[in-house]
Amino acid sequence: MSAEPGADAPRVHLVGAGPGDPDLLTVKAVRLLRRADVVLHDALVGEAILALAPQARLIDVGKRAGRPSMAQRFINRVLVASARRHACVVRLKGGDPAVFGRLDEETQALRQAGIAFEVVPGVTAASAAAAALGTSLTLRNVARSVSFVTPRVAAESHADPARIAAAEGQDTLVVYMAGAMIGALGAQLIARGRAARTPLAVIENASLPSQRVWRGTLGSAGDWTGPVDGGPVLLLVGDAIGAGVEPVAVVPAAVAA
Amino acid sequence: MSAEPGADAPRVHLVGAGPGDPDLLTVKAVRLLRRADVVLHDALVGEAILALAPQARLIDVGKRAGRPSMAQRFINRVLVASARRHACVVRLKGGDPAVFGRLDEETQALRQAGIAFEVVPGVTAASAAAAALGTSLTLRNVARSVSFVTPRVAAESHADPARIAAAEGQDTLVVYMAGAMIGALGAQLIARGRAARTPLAVIENASLPSQRVWRGTLGSAGDWTGPVDGGPVLLLVGDAIGAGVEPVAVVPAAVAA
Repeated sequence: MSAEPGADAPRVHLVGAGPGDPDLLTVKAVRLLRRADVVLHDALVGEAILALAPQARLIDVGKRAGRPSMAQRFINRVLVASARRHACVVRLKGGDPAVFGRLDEETQALRQAGIAFEVVPGVTAASAAAAALGTSLTLRNVARSVSFVTPRVAAESHADPARIAAAEGQDTLVVYMAGAMIGALGAQLIARGRAARTPLAVIENASLPSQRVWRGTLGSAGDWTGPVDGGPVLLLVGDAIGAGVEPVAVVPAAVAA
Repeated sequence: MSAEPGADAPRVHLVGAGPGDPDLLTVKAVRLLRRADVVLHDALVGEAILALAPQARLIDVGKRAGRPSMAQRFINRVLVASARRHACVVRLKGGDPAVFGRLDEETQALRQAGIAFEVVPGVTAASAAAAALGTSLTLRNVARSVSFVTPRVAAESHADPARIAAAEGQDTLVVYMAGAMIGALGAQLIARGRAARTPLAVIENASLPSQRVWRGTLGSAGDWTGPVDGGPVLLLVGDAIGAGVEPVAVVPAAVAA
């Protein structure tokens, strides 16, 4: 992921910021932030992470609930303009850029502008959520696959037979940006044939001090009382999620025996 | 992911080592390696990463092709015994511990022994493979979900209607440990109805200097000439994989425009 001999050194680094805890940044992300002239970041990237780039011009291009987001076209324009003026531009995205990060719209703009870039992967939220539970997303002989979906896909499965089957057939289901839809998704998955006793966990602000974990089942999903703040909410569903622990509400940070 | 006030501080840290490049370790993983008394590691964790723990006793508990692996029961026993004698035991797993990491067998042993532990997430190989391609695993209006599976699951889909539908319904498919099965998997996915022109990429040793990328389609999967060494091989399938680039064989490190 460094420049090939002879290839243009990348001027733009599309970097995964990980789930939120600055300790879960990669070594490479930290080094790039320290070097960056400009950092374009999502709204969800926290202050502690941005503080690692005190010399950089910080540009918040993120979306926030209730606030108009910068249009993607404008983000692309700022990205290209910054790369023309500066040697080290970091585009910092929450989690991993390749997972629901709308990476391609920006890489396409960079390719069209002839600007060399690299993608620096990060820890995706699903991994941090599983770590918060002290459990695995896959489990031998139980959950031999894991799917990452958005609530819209999960909801649309109702109408689309291929997607219904997909949601049923996959062993572990991780719904990103699950927000206020937890109860409805639980009911929909039961309606499609998943057992009401299937373990489920809702993780808010995975890896941050404000992390909250709620455990239940598809049948009790409606009991979740909703997000405390505007932070990211992940829904994990499947038999692997309940392995080794009782299905009770817990707020673990370290997982004690 | 640090200990709660009042909770036992974790003595065992089950840590994701990321895809291979030491720069893709998390800050937390590096700090734990520097502190560790004992490091139990998989065979695929490289020398450069292990060199970050020069003071620790290193125990290779990994599997290697052609060598009998330590039985899981023995790994569990070493893990528990180490935790009883040392304050900081690191169990280092390739990628993210929650993705095909057989995490639960070890956490169960730790729970039974009453030893506090924590899981430190890492960058999973799929994220590094996508970064190597300069592409995304999800793509708005094209690939609205991504599934991680093993070749065995992909192969068994032949017999299991739910799994067949799953493999068809999911937009991007990432096959971990795809090894020598690339051609067969391509043929199977076509037999199940995916278009022969569906883009495909094979990434060996993602993020390492020895990284190799091969691009083709499901129809040309049989042309892949096989892995060069015993390193990890990932297969990525789906329309998102081909976005923005021509389907030609490339060995990119930085992605130049």
